[in-house]
Amino acid sequence: MVLQTVQSIEPMFHPKSVAIIGASNKNGKIGNTLLVNIQKSGYEGKVFPINTKETEILGFPAFKSILDVPDEIDLGVICIPSKFCVPVVDECGKKGVKTLVIITAGFKEIGGEGVTRENKIRELGKQYGMRILGPNCLGLITDGNFSFSSLTPKKGHIGMLSQSGAMMTGLLDWAVDNQIGFSSFISLGNKCDADEVDFIEYLAQDEQTKVIAAYIESVQDGEKFFKVVSEATKKKPVILLKSGRSAAGAKAASSHTGALAGSDIAFDLAFKKAGVIRAETISDLFNYCMTFIIAPIPQGDKFAIITNAGGPGIVCTDAMELSQLGIARFSEDTIQKLKEVLPAESNFYNPVDIIGDAPPERYEAATDILLQCPDSEVAGAIILLTPQAQTKPLEVAQKIASLHQKYPTKSLVASFIGGVSVNEASKHLTQGGVPTYAFPEDAVRVLKGLERYKDIKQAPPITKKKIPKINVNKDRVREIISNARTDGRVVLLSYETSEIFDLYGIKNPKSRLAQTARDAAKIAEEIGFPVVMKIVSPQIIHKWDCGGVVLNIQSAQDAKNAFIQIMSNAKSKGPSGADLRGVEVQEMIIKKDKKKINELIFGVNRDPQWGPMIMVGSGGIYANYVKDVQFELTYQYDRTDALNQLQQTKISKILEGVRGEPRSDIDGVLDILVRLSQLVNDFTEIIELDINPCLVFEAESGYSAVDIKITIKH
Amino acid sequence: MVLQTVQSIEPMFHPKSVAIIGASNKNGKIGNTLLVNIQKSGYEGKVFPINTKETEILGFPAFKSILDVPDEIDLGVICIPSKFCVPVVDECGKKGVKTLVIITAGFKEIGGEGVTRENKIRELGKQYGMRILGPNCLGLITDGNFSFSSLTPKKGHIGMLSQSGAMMTGLLDWAVDNQIGFSSFISLGNKCDADEVDFIEYLAQDEQTKVIAAYIESVQDGEKFFKVVSEATKKKPVILLKSGRSAAGAKAASSHTGALAGSDIAFDLAFKKAGVIRAETISDLFNYCMTFIIAPIPQGDKFAIITNAGGPGIVCTDAMELSQLGIARFSEDTIQKLKEVLPAESNFYNPVDIIGDAPPERYEAATDILLQCPDSEVAGAIILLTPQAQTKPLEVAQKIASLHQKYPTKSLVASFIGGVSVNEASKHLTQGGVPTYAFPEDAVRVLKGLERYKDIKQAPPITKKKIPKINVNKDRVREIISNARTDGRVVLLSYETSEIFDLYGIKNPKSRLAQTARDAAKIAEEIGFPVVMKIVSPQIIHKWDCGGVVLNIQSAQDAKNAFIQIMSNAKSKGPSGADLRGVEVQEMIIKKDKKKINELIFGVNRDPQWGPMIMVGSGGIYANYVKDVQFELTYQYDRTDALNQLQQTKISKILEGVRGEPRSDIDGVLDILVRLSQLVNDFTEIIELDINPCLVFEAESGYSAVDIKITIKH
Repeated sequence: MVLQTVQSIEPMFHPKSVAIIGASNKNGKIGNTLLVNIQKSGYEGKVFPINTKETEILGFPAFKSILDVPDEIDLGVICIPSKFCVPVVDECGKKGVKTLVIITAGFKEIGGEGVTRENKIRELGKQYGMRILGPNCLGLITDGNFSFSSLTPKKGHIGMLSQSGAMMTGLLDWAVDNQIGFSSFISLGNKCDADEVDFIEYLAQDEQTKVIAAYIESVQDGEKFFKVVSEATKKKPVILLKSGRSAAGAKAASSHTGALAGSDIAFDLAFKKAGVIRAETISDLFNYCMTFIIAPIPQGDKFAIITNAGGPGIVCTDAMELSQLGIARFSEDTIQKLKEVLPAESNFYNPVDIIGDAPPERYEAATDILLQCPDSEVAGAIILLTPQAQTKPLEVAQKIASLHQKYPTKSLVASFIGGVSVNEASKHLTQGGVPTYAFPEDAVRVLKGLERYKDIKQAPPITKKKIPKINVNKDRVREIISNARTDGRVVLLSYETSEIFDLYGIKNPKSRLAQTARDAAKIAEEIGFPVVMKIVSPQIIHKWDCGGVVLNIQSAQDAKNAFIQIMSNAKSKGPSGADLRGVEVQEMIIKKDKKKINELIFGVNRDPQWGPMIMVGSGGIYANYVKDVQFELTYQYDRTDALNQLQQTKISKILEGVRGEPRSDIDGVLDILVRLSQLVNDFTEIIELDINPCLVFEAESGYSAVDIKITIKH
Repeated sequence: MVLQTVQSIEPMFHPKSVAIIGASNKNGKIGNTLLVNIQKSGYEGKVFPINTKETEILGFPAFKSILDVPDEIDLGVICIPSKFCVPVVDECGKKGVKTLVIITAGFKEIGGEGVTRENKIRELGKQYGMRILGPNCLGLITDGNFSFSSLTPKKGHIGMLSQSGAMMTGLLDWAVDNQIGFSSFISLGNKCDADEVDFIEYLAQDEQTKVIAAYIESVQDGEKFFKVVSEATKKKPVILLKSGRSAAGAKAASSHTGALAGSDIAFDLAFKKAGVIRAETISDLFNYCMTFIIAPIPQGDKFAIITNAGGPGIVCTDAMELSQLGIARFSEDTIQKLKEVLPAESNFYNPVDIIGDAPPERYEAATDILLQCPDSEVAGAIILLTPQAQTKPLEVAQKIASLHQKYPTKSLVASFIGGVSVNEASKHLTQGGVPTYAFPEDAVRVLKGLERYKDIKQAPPITKKKIPKINVNKDRVREIISNARTDGRVVLLSYETSEIFDLYGIKNPKSRLAQTARDAAKIAEEIGFPVVMKIVSPQIIHKWDCGGVVLNIQSAQDAKNAFIQIMSNAKSKGPSGADLRGVEVQEMIIKKDKKKINELIFGVNRDPQWGPMIMVGSGGIYANYVKDVQFELTYQYDRTDALNQLQQTKISKILEGVRGEPRSDIDGVLDILVRLSQLVNDFTEIIELDINPCLVFEAESGYSAVDIKITIKH
């Protein structure tokens, strides 16, 4: 499967022959620009312009139809008007063209006939086994510049994807100015066939590509993304800039649960799960790329600062602490060595201040000592420099670059603060393999990125995780859901929810439906007093408001009375014509029997791209105001994920037992999380699920999911 | 007073004559560099080198002593070794030198004799009325370059201060490279006399200075800062980069209250109070400066985006939402006008997408329409451009710059994404008064800065606020504190705290000290049952642990018994030799009488630079884990500040009444805050104060500060 994708799009990267369908002699036409770009970019394969009228274009013999070309075609580039595209794609298929790029716009993005056209093209691609990039894109730059961007960046090791053509133009322009090299640059367009994930899969195994970067606005298929990207990130860093946060935020989900989330959270979680490094800004994207291309991944997580000035040292320390980048603590031995080479006024602790008059030799000596340290003590260093009277920035840069050669596994970054006096030195140092920035904060940010990638690379791939499952009578759950659907209900009745929870082993108060007063008394006796009784009717949402709830029922007689009273209240005060199914008799939790009670909230909603997202946190009536909840996607979700998620809530510490209180039933909480995760993955019909509150007791006393709700698809 | 500072340091800015004490003919000596810099910077006043041996230096006649100079001296620059400085400063005083800059190091920063020397110099300065900059600094650049930094930046409108000499070198170097101009550039050094606040006061009235910026590591005097800076920020923007956050964070305050704070929070609050814009990074500092120099302060708070590409438009929208910058909603009329000039495929809503083929005229037409809107609809715009085939970046820049002339009160910023194709256009646009950045996020950030400054400028100066005070019997409070001090106690006993709270009108359970069992019964009857009784002893902190607390006492007999039991428990289980002062009899809050009870926490600790900092938030035993607290400085703190502070907590919404609950006694909470603020400002002896919990009831039922503690200075 993996191989298939790679093989099928390979011809886009290394085409032996290219046909330009819509090639033109007219300056200014896209079909002309394309051919010029291919020529100028030094593409060495065969080029076949296709044009119904011309016989030669820019020196290449032209053909009337792709079918006339006397050779195999690896890559077809289509730039004819959209209305002619479908038959031409069909011809390409017949010809056996291996891959296609459709530059032409006028498809899905215009709606109507555009959508139909795009669907036809997708089908033709599938029919002929011909992978398609686009339509509505700028093209791609691989072995040649097969795009209508006139700028061809230099060859390098960044594989870049862009879902926005304009963004690609801007990025290319900027990259050319900043001498940044690419292994490939791909404009994704409408993604009618090949999408970001396919290209990430290709780039992950492409030897020319050391870093994969992309600007994206959406992801087509969350599960495919997880499968491919979580493996790709083990091979090389994948850095994504994803926009549309605010639009996503606006799509406030309707439910209680969702009200606390926004689907940008889902993207954040998905990227984390897949090991993607998320760029916050465009410049972030490039800074990460440039750093990952040249700097080694650190072998430890603590770093030294070497500076010739106190102020920048403090700024850098601040930035490290704020981004939680480890600040090295030197051993006595290291401090002793530093004392031997540095003036007495220096600071020998981190940040190492080698004083304003530091010559290049002093930078070298101090850095050498620190890079000699074991990785556990110093995994790398940030070199800071301000151009003072005796400072020789270029010589310092040369010395540091040599040390980078001497200690190639240590992560080194630098900030030479200044302009005229340090520009040349900064460039020299960056070219020497030490990414150098004007300000310390940027140096810290990229080093933190390197350090994060170390953890990403080390973590076992999520696809390899075995998720244990409990045995459940799924048929019964299916039956309950199907009954509700037959009834036209989207919210399950509480005793139905209760039964599903029982089937999945999630403890909740015993609860059954009584249809007569006598029933109620009998059920209450079986459950054990006290009980709570509540009206059951699909039409009655606010049960309290119509007198549909009676608490603390202590005897069979009281249960009978309560039944009659609830039914009569519901009839008189409930919505007229409400379908009264009976009364739910529910076990009542006796709070004074418990040493400790905390209220938790759980919830699940379904993200359109990433699937079920599970929530846990502080519950109770104030849950929406306290906002102490954490989210996680349920893809490959296990007990460890559940624990990590729980530990990010504030209530987690309280459950562990503080201020002399006992530990709560944390195992039970984790149970709920993994079981809910299984439930919503077993039944995609469930679109929303809430527990609030779930009463969690001291460890030996368990928990009880008191108030539960399941919403299913229409 | 204000005038005094300005007058006294004025000669540093516009000296008619300068004496260089330690001037030298020797290349490489600071005394030589200084003179060279003064010459090269085109200083037009008189220059007097002072050197004990030379008769002429760099063409200037030299003098053996400052006393020999046959003219008045406005500015003396001292660069002789530190051990000779004291007598020389004395001579300068005798000569009537108006201001001094001491470049020389070897003072406070080396400790010991350095401290003594610095103190002597400060005293001499005071004695002669001679203001001093430094020692241990780089000097300053005003009418001439009176520093030993060889770079003289171009003249401009940024008044810059730096507490780090090295940072100043770096910043100057960068600024020269980026063509940034300064009205003055001052290295603060040890701040033995003139400090950042004095210079801010000067720059605030200096006509050449449009923006005041500084890198600082500390503030000398918080109250002076508030008084001067909160007025300065009404005249022009003050942008500060303050480092040492992490070091500050490490200084975790010892108390319960302080454990939740860190003194960087105090800086943040102080800056906000004074109207300072805090730069987060060095590049932030410059971006803000450059923007404030050229762009007008917006007259409204909603902004348009005009773009020729969708992707960057989304990125920009995201950045605006994330930084809470208002996104304009256009009127029907505006949309209609846009429709008349833009192609049908455009987006006429915000962000306005004028499509990839937009020529300069389309940019102009759309922007013109939007800038015509009233300020309340569109106060300014962000112009985005990506270099596509038909785009002419330079012409777009020219059109936009003209529109800036046409609508000079509208705030315009731009991002031309790219490099080679847009660099010239970006420069042109920036020079034309529209700050232009490579990436939209930076444009948004500076526009947000402009918008924030609008609010700062509009807000009445904090110094003008009248803070109402309640009448208090301060003598009695003084007496209580003094008794505790006589006793050698730093934590007041609970009935003492209770009395102070009573005096300040902060409701707390009635409480009195009983010294006999009979006393206890009598007091309990007077207070009314039930009561709580607690041991009172300076040595017993954990009263529960030694059986020193009895709850829910219902009768006089029970009170007698409880007294005997508590005293006996304290004797047998308390620390041996504990001074048992008796038993506190305290009113007990009957929870079931209340419709609503919420637990709040209050606290005050004292920041060394900024004075008392008050805290409020969710209280109770979990307060430390819930971490829902907000801080504010008590300088000029009134009821409005209290309300703003409270409203930033999550519990605030709950107090307002949610889920059908009544409103809580929010007035009472504000009462506590302003009264506590008055208390800790009346008595600087109080270094810490805690209330946790304070039970807050429904509006008509008040509150009760149940558990209170005051810590005083030794």
